[in-house]
Amino acid sequence: MMSLASNTKAQLLELEKKYALQYNALKDRNIALDMSRGKPSGDQLNLSNGILTEPLDNYMTEQGIDARNYGILDGISEVKHLFGKLLDIPEANMIIGGNSSLNLIYDSMARLYMFGSLGSTPWGKLDKVKILCPVPGYDRHFAICEEFGFEMINVPMKKDGPDMDMVESIVKTDASVKGILCVPLYSNPDGTCYSDETVLRLARMETAAEDFKIFWDNAYGIHHVFKQVSLYNIFDACRRFNTENRILYFFSTSKITFPGSGVALVAAGDDYIKEIKQHFGRQTIGYDKLNQLRVFHFFKNVDGMLAHMSKLADELRPKFNIVLETLRHEFSDNDMLKWVKPLGGYFVSVNTLPHCAKETVRLAKEAGLVLTNAGATYPYGNDPMDSNIRIAPSYPTCDELEKAMELFCVCVKLAAVRKALEYK
Amino acid sequence: MMSLASNTKAQLLELEKKYALQYNALKDRNIALDMSRGKPSGDQLNLSNGILTEPLDNYMTEQGIDARNYGILDGISEVKHLFGKLLDIPEANMIIGGNSSLNLIYDSMARLYMFGSLGSTPWGKLDKVKILCPVPGYDRHFAICEEFGFEMINVPMKKDGPDMDMVESIVKTDASVKGILCVPLYSNPDGTCYSDETVLRLARMETAAEDFKIFWDNAYGIHHVFKQVSLYNIFDACRRFNTENRILYFFSTSKITFPGSGVALVAAGDDYIKEIKQHFGRQTIGYDKLNQLRVFHFFKNVDGMLAHMSKLADELRPKFNIVLETLRHEFSDNDMLKWVKPLGGYFVSVNTLPHCAKETVRLAKEAGLVLTNAGATYPYGNDPMDSNIRIAPSYPTCDELEKAMELFCVCVKLAAVRKALEYK
Repeated sequence: MMSLASNTKAQLLELEKKYALQYNALKDRNIALDMSRGKPSGDQLNLSNGILTEPLDNYMTEQGIDARNYGILDGISEVKHLFGKLLDIPEANMIIGGNSSLNLIYDSMARLYMFGSLGSTPWGKLDKVKILCPVPGYDRHFAICEEFGFEMINVPMKKDGPDMDMVESIVKTDASVKGILCVPLYSNPDGTCYSDETVLRLARMETAAEDFKIFWDNAYGIHHVFKQVSLYNIFDACRRFNTENRILYFFSTSKITFPGSGVALVAAGDDYIKEIKQHFGRQTIGYDKLNQLRVFHFFKNVDGMLAHMSKLADELRPKFNIVLETLRHEFSDNDMLKWVKPLGGYFVSVNTLPHCAKETVRLAKEAGLVLTNAGATYPYGNDPMDSNIRIAPSYPTCDELEKAMELFCVCVKLAAVRKALEYK
Repeated sequence: MMSLASNTKAQLLELEKKYALQYNALKDRNIALDMSRGKPSGDQLNLSNGILTEPLDNYMTEQGIDARNYGILDGISEVKHLFGKLLDIPEANMIIGGNSSLNLIYDSMARLYMFGSLGSTPWGKLDKVKILCPVPGYDRHFAICEEFGFEMINVPMKKDGPDMDMVESIVKTDASVKGILCVPLYSNPDGTCYSDETVLRLARMETAAEDFKIFWDNAYGIHHVFKQVSLYNIFDACRRFNTENRILYFFSTSKITFPGSGVALVAAGDDYIKEIKQHFGRQTIGYDKLNQLRVFHFFKNVDGMLAHMSKLADELRPKFNIVLETLRHEFSDNDMLKWVKPLGGYFVSVNTLPHCAKETVRLAKEAGLVLTNAGATYPYGNDPMDSNIRIAPSYPTCDELEKAMELFCVCVKLAAVRKALEYK
């Protein structure tokens, strides 16, 4: 294993020359590729085209309700059954929402800001509200916290979830810590899966804030790619410790069928879901029941949904393999990049040597490859080590991805060697 | 014209006996009809079935964007063109939203509550926020104001819109008055159409609150039934007086195609729409572009939309006629009920003699006809005269509606004569 820092200045200069030559050669290829977001590819979207081409001849729900008309605030029973069975959530505890779970998360934060929950002080009336953010994490979660002025506290992500010793000690003593942002399965971007113990500790932990909330964004709950990891049921866990009103559970089919045209879900404990429904009843007359029917007709049942996910995994797996293979080939004999193979989800998260991520992303962009901004995976866009980069392999074709990864690796090396030279 | 109060006690007792007999006979018919909400009928919904049966084979937008994937926060350009031309709103000033304009209104109120607008103090940080409510009005608007604790102030509705002398004098002196709720064309429930002068006065009036907002819910903007009334363009009016940032304009196709599965719009002045878009960018990744495409493909252009509205008017007109004919027949020779014939929209608003509306609705309900609650058309459900009732004729068939109106008229009379007896 070559340690970059152990090279002499002359050796580093030679490496710099070599990588710069490679970089310039790739730059001349005029790559133009945007891998900044976790977007599905055209082939992946094609798997769901049946939703678009199948006429919705029968618009009556199984309960005999005309889905074209007003009525039903919390979703048609077909989709409740489907999601309830898929995720093992009681139907009484869920609301089937619109097209975006992010929107449901935003609205949940807004509700807590404006109205509090179950009699607690609205968060907007408090001097300070802090939210725990396992890092690296999802930039759009952080953007919502910034919108409401919630102070974000970094919590390091470990192999089996956030550092629970740290979480427990903070939430026990600081009543201004009101929540934690979790993507519990195949987390964005690390692909971390929370262990049973992590889920149980989140459910059991003593919180100084009586209105503490776990924002449980199970966005990749069925996105198994290499292995099916199972997630301990947060409802079961919280019921065990009588803490179920701290759950705010989110799910959607955006990353399953069509982003922006899927069906989203929010679920909460017995008491809190009732309060949420009251607010929903003033916010809207109801969500798009026809689209709920379309999605249901397409999947029919849990088996149909899992069969679809298996096809989707078949689409994603070769792309993950290209990324992982290239990284292994280029970096297994040196210390310029570290990563952990994810078992599912949508991303590969990598760490450059300290203070090299921004320069890596800048170099890639200059050569036509747009990556997720360095820092985006940390609150306030501030990665203290300037090291983490999120690779989103879903959108490009395999051929494009190979070229992109070749360029990416050269950018990592060039940034690393130039940084190392600064210390010589 | 018979004045009920001019009857002797004996005459009233006789009338009471007669109406009670009629009422009991109708009660025995076991009517079961819910006319409480402005719901389209099955026949009306059938007019839009093309949206459901036509496959969406082409999911590329005119700008070459794959509508199945992420992207486009503020709506596809097709729908912007369509709505822009239909309503004469600049495309840059609009956001095409989800399925519900009510949701957009709620979110607009919530945004003002949490963030203020253009640098003003968030409404949630103020001791008192008051909203002017032309009455009678729309109960779901009032429910939103209640949700945020905004104090609602009744403003009488005149023939050509709210009493503008009153509006002007209040908003000029009271800085805690932050907005006015308007359904400017074929208002809910009165069918009032704002005159050019009313719109211009709203645009021109001096407001003590610098962040005053006009909630312009143009829900029935193209719902001409008997005559096409035109509405002065609020954007033109406000630009004339440099007040365009007080506009919050809402529209949707819920009452045009399918309630809950349509496309909604919010528009605002140049500066404020930019601020709204920033908040939208944190709230969601985007709305359902595929449904926007479906709606656009169905209408194709403004002519297609107006042709559709003409069919819809053909559906509604006979129902309005049944209501109006029955009322004329039963009440034109006495003072027990007053109403104004609406020229479009969705409702007929009637006024009983004072303190008779609740009893009328109760009697109807007891006989199987559910009407909109008496009082619902006033803030806090409190109609000071207990007189206004909203009739929603769209949902029942003509045959059902005839039976319902027969019952309704008897209920009005029975309630009136019993109330008159109390004074004797």
